[in-house]
Amino acid sequence: MILRGVAQVVFQPNPWVGLVFLVALFVGGWRFGVFGLLGTVTATLTAHLLGVSWSDRVALGLEGFSGTLIGVGLALYFDVSWLTVLLVIFGAVAGSVLTSALNVLLMPYKLSALTAPFCVITTVMVVGGSSFSRVWARQVSTAAPSATAPGTGMSWDHLWRGTFSGIGQVFLQGQWYVGLIFLAGLVLAGWRVGLVALVSSLTGLITGWVLGAQAADLGAGLYGYNSVLTGVALFGTFVVATPVSAGYALVGAVAAAGLTAGISNLFAVAGGHTLTWPFVLVTWTFLAAVPMFSRIARA
Amino acid sequence: MILRGVAQVVFQPNPWVGLVFLVALFVGGWRFGVFGLLGTVTATLTAHLLGVSWSDRVALGLEGFSGTLIGVGLALYFDVSWLTVLLVIFGAVAGSVLTSALNVLLMPYKLSALTAPFCVITTVMVVGGSSFSRVWARQVSTAAPSATAPGTGMSWDHLWRGTFSGIGQVFLQGQWYVGLIFLAGLVLAGWRVGLVALVSSLTGLITGWVLGAQAADLGAGLYGYNSVLTGVALFGTFVVATPVSAGYALVGAVAAAGLTAGISNLFAVAGGHTLTWPFVLVTWTFLAAVPMFSRIARA
Amino acid sequence: MILRGVAQVVFQPNPWVGLVFLVALFVGGWRFGVFGLLGTVTATLTAHLLGVSWSDRVALGLEGFSGTLIGVGLALYFDVSWLTVLLVIFGAVAGSVLTSALNVLLMPYKLSALTAPFCVITTVMVVGGSSFSRVWARQVSTAAPSATAPGTGMSWDHLWRGTFSGIGQVFLQGQWYVGLIFLAGLVLAGWRVGLVALVSSLTGLITGWVLGAQAADLGAGLYGYNSVLTGVALFGTFVVATPVSAGYALVGAVAAAGLTAGISNLFAVAGGHTLTWPFVLVTWTFLAAVPMFSRIARA
Repeated sequence: MILRGVAQVVFQPNPWVGLVFLVALFVGGWRFGVFGLLGTVTATLTAHLLGVSWSDRVALGLEGFSGTLIGVGLALYFDVSWLTVLLVIFGAVAGSVLTSALNVLLMPYKLSALTAPFCVITTVMVVGGSSFSRVWARQVSTAAPSATAPGTGMSWDHLWRGTFSGIGQVFLQGQWYVGLIFLAGLVLAGWRVGLVALVSSLTGLITGWVLGAQAADLGAGLYGYNSVLTGVALFGTFVVATPVSAGYALVGAVAAAGLTAGISNLFAVAGGHTLTWPFVLVTWTFLAAVPMFSRIARA
Repeated sequence: MILRGVAQVVFQPNPWVGLVFLVALFVGGWRFGVFGLLGTVTATLTAHLLGVSWSDRVALGLEGFSGTLIGVGLALYFDVSWLTVLLVIFGAVAGSVLTSALNVLLMPYKLSALTAPFCVITTVMVVGGSSFSRVWARQVSTAAPSATAPGTGMSWDHLWRGTFSGIGQVFLQGQWYVGLIFLAGLVLAGWRVGLVALVSSLTGLITGWVLGAQAADLGAGLYGYNSVLTGVALFGTFVVATPVSAGYALVGAVAAAGLTAGISNLFAVAGGHTLTWPFVLVTWTFLAAVPMFSRIARA
Repeated sequence: MILRGVAQVVFQPNPWVGLVFLVALFVGGWRFGVFGLLGTVTATLTAHLLGVSWSDRVALGLEGFSGTLIGVGLALYFDVSWLTVLLVIFGAVAGSVLTSALNVLLMPYKLSALTAPFCVITTVMVVGGSSFSRVWARQVSTAAPSATAPGTGMSWDHLWRGTFSGIGQVFLQGQWYVGLIFLAGLVLAGWRVGLVALVSSLTGLITGWVLGAQAADLGAGLYGYNSVLTGVALFGTFVVATPVSAGYALVGAVAAAGLTAGISNLFAVAGGHTLTWPFVLVTWTFLAAVPMFSRIARA
């Protein structure tokens, strides 16, 4: 259920999909693979030790995926060190408690925590890190690509790379070929999942382009990954796939890409990162609204 | 139900009231009228197409008013352009989904979304706009009046203009005579509604004055409009009107005016605007608390 | 029930404990005692006049403790003046309404408002205060101790003083001997409560130390007080005390100390203070999660 945990980042309970994702993480950098695994194992173990239901949640990998992302995120934003190992372990433990808390709070609305625990824990650690000399010293510069290559002129290169990178950025990976391996994992989960992810990534990229975002950021997939998660969540995963819900998911994917800029600016003030906040907020909103709409149904 | 949508900004289901409000918007500037209408129509249509109950919500204008304000807000903060038209349409669609989501989430507490969808969508668009070259280029400078005329010395002029402007600012309109037309609309809805709005506007202004706010901001009604909405909501609309609830609404109106400064400063950091956030937060709080109080009853 | 209100800051319904706490406040400074009492009386009276249940809440002091902290907080962050008296009275009234609102909203999850009303009201007043010439003029400089004595070298002095101050900082009091009197009050409530508070304070301090926080801030108890409240809340108060829940409370105390830095940095941007936000957020999370855990039980 560790591999399932990795696969659940994109709502897939298939361990083989998780294996492909894990390979992609190691291709992105060994530390992403190692810290991602550490987070997944820690979170899953914490949930099991505290007595979370095995058959309903732990065995399906539902207690692992926030830990995966916490591990990958801290490996990206902090240096590789024993203190970071400690932070990942503690973050995954706290993320596991937060997952249960959010699931209890959202249960009346039949919503789930999504990747919110990852977003909360990582944001808190990155924002808080600057107060702590031992943590701060290890913070890695992670400026947006547009900081070194400003400009809004899109090239064909930005377009196709950005579309694949948009899938890789779901795991905070910016190289297009890493994104391609993730896409392979999604196709393994089902050709429709792969297609929805690809179209959603492109939708996010085009949304950013129409609004006039920086081309280098578009090319790194920064406007795509929240759209990927939102698109997959709203079309076929949590909402029954119909022509109406396709339009609904498309609006959601556009909203997630637009929200990306708002969240980035908000967090820039406090030294934070966008993470998957736009996906979480848009998907909660679009799922919560469904009961009011007679033409859309929850899966 | 389009005119009803405009009227519902101040909780009135009367289309004639909406017509007077619409006239006031056009007097404030043709773009406020046109974009306000565009937002109302788009939001109402979205709700209808997604299958929101016609008799319970759409026909009463309850699906339109957030769209009205989104249209007026974007017309104020962005330039008049085709991109702004696109932003208003998309914002109204997203605002419509958010309205349904909030209504589902708040249903267990018998609260409604109020103007929160307008606040969220407009804040996100204005804060996020600076990342997008095409949007940013069109942002209009909307500094507070006190930026050009600092000082806390109140004149009689500030007092009476601010009281009327406080009603106009519910629709983000700063001229006193536009506020006067809105007041006429409220009196048409019922003399008590008009009186409550007038007293609430004055309450907000006096609260700001006692605390030592900038006179030019008071004169532009910036401390009044949240008190107007809060006062009308808490006295006679969602709470049964009694002497005790009059005091309760008065405390609410004072709190909304006080909160205005807190929210303004918080958003100033990220380049946002106060909008009707203070009204939303205070009114949710004061309505949610009612079940604990044996001496106050929900309408 | 006024003394009970003071005691309820640390979840104790015993009036004698409240008396000891009140003595400690007066030792910290007469204005803390006087404004704390003013806040407690105002909040309790407001709740009673609005008709909150006497036997379930008012008589137990549950409607007073947020008022206590609002009074102490405003006495610390603003000057002693008639305007501050007015702000405390209004703040306690608004805090009382917010207490009821949060209790209604959290009731389905069997959570309570904790000190959130104090956090919200005080944050809003301090952040908003800068807009108001009369309020702003009276703001007192309250920079962290590390501003004048930077450095991360811990001494034995920092350690023992910080442990006692961590208990005093629950009431925003930084002297170690004031913390000692509060500890005496907690021991009066029960030797276990006192022991948990002491261990939690030390836990918070050590967490900050491991992460490399400023020694002067550690010595002033700034990393301890949220851990104290979290530890006492999660071990024996709201959660049944068992070996597993001891570990759970320990993780909570560590999380509260870590979160302290995140919240401080977030609020530093807007000119706010950390207050007991970390305790509130961590304790809500850890209590909300309990139903998912078969090995932990709510008290």
